[in-house]
Amino acid sequence: MSGFSPAIASLIQALRVLPGVGQKTAQRMAFMLLERQRGGAEKLAASIEHALQVVGRCQQCRTLTEGEVCAICLDPQRAEQGVLCIVESPADVIAVEQTGEFHGQYFVLMGNLSPLDGIGPKDIGLDLLEQRLQQGHIQEVILATNPTVEGEATAHYIAESAARYQIDTSRIAHGVPVGGELEYVDHRTLGHAFQGRKKV
Amino acid sequence: MSGFSPAIASLIQALRVLPGVGQKTAQRMAFMLLERQRGGAEKLAASIEHALQVVGRCQQCRTLTEGEVCAICLDPQRAEQGVLCIVESPADVIAVEQTGEFHGQYFVLMGNLSPLDGIGPKDIGLDLLEQRLQQGHIQEVILATNPTVEGEATAHYIAESAARYQIDTSRIAHGVPVGGELEYVDHRTLGHAFQGRKKV
Ligand SMILES: [Zn+2]
Ligand SMILES: [Zn+2]
Repeated sequence: MSGFSPAIASLIQALRVLPGVGQKTAQRMAFMLLERQRGGAEKLAASIEHALQVVGRCQQCRTLTEGEVCAICLDPQRAEQGVLCIVESPADVIAVEQTGEFHGQYFVLMGNLSPLDGIGPKDIGLDLLEQRLQQGHIQEVILATNPTVEGEATAHYIAESAARYQIDTSRIAHGVPVGGELEYVDHRTLGHAFQGRKKV
Repeated sequence: MSGFSPAIASLIQALRVLPGVGQKTAQRMAFMLLERQRGGAEKLAASIEHALQVVGRCQQCRTLTEGEVCAICLDPQRAEQGVLCIVESPADVIAVEQTGEFHGQYFVLMGNLSPLDGIGPKDIGLDLLEQRLQQGHIQEVILATNPTVEGEATAHYIAESAARYQIDTSRIAHGVPVGGELEYVDHRTLGHAFQGRKKV
């Protein structure tokens, strides 16, 4: 990068690790941090370091957390429900929590089955999930993977596991978003909306 | 932030210091760093720390740099030109350098005059610039501030300073971008293009 002093060039390069951040954005971020946000930059570096040190995976549900087991898994009221929602990522846990509609526990796959990419059942914790289902505390599994080819395949795989233990299994509905207009909905979503239609 | 463990919540909060990064994007960034980019996250934290420690302002041109004086100011061939380009920010230096059209030196305002925001001449280094013009090594000043109200006012102020020392002063042209289509150019740029028209 002609024109940048080495420490600035390294910072720009390092910022590109962030999702959606290209060269131009990284440049803008680096200059902003160094020109006007030195306190914020200091905090950012410290927060990254700290999170890297203390954040790991929950031993029960695999979500990102600071303890051995996350707050949701530790909550006895949630355990009592006997319902397990299967999601792809910690961000999905947050999204479901924000609905206020679900009061059970989660299992976070951290991905999906993808044989072509060499991602098999163990890579997404399905052995751990199997043990969980075997224990007999779970009466219902809700599959909330995304409606992609991999998400559907993963949901199907888990549904078969759950069936072996006589656990009720459902898949969340995919369709036209509430308040969404039909003509602006992408065709895959609209396809799902038709497949998932219900008698009125 | 219900659902996030404290270290993750702090990281999300800290990421929001970055320009254009809201809550959702910060969440996505935090999870990505902690799930899949731990090495990159480590490097990012270290690069921020290092840059904060070593990067300051060039004593001559005010740009961000690691030494007391930046590489451009230290280059004797550039000093020989006797031409000073006035820009608003270090990013503008990079942009001008990338044109390959300019071989002189820079002066970086780190802002613009803005009396309403309490930003006066000293706040953007115009006292330092005045000293520089007074020394007699500069034969030409090129004003490359942006075509905003503040940028124009700042350019005007500097042009008057330069005139006191009989230094030739020019303003870069603003107009329709090369390859740009008239109908897609914003009306302010188009206005500038008309004002700056040249006889053919
Ligand atoms: Zn957990
Ligand atoms: Zn300099």
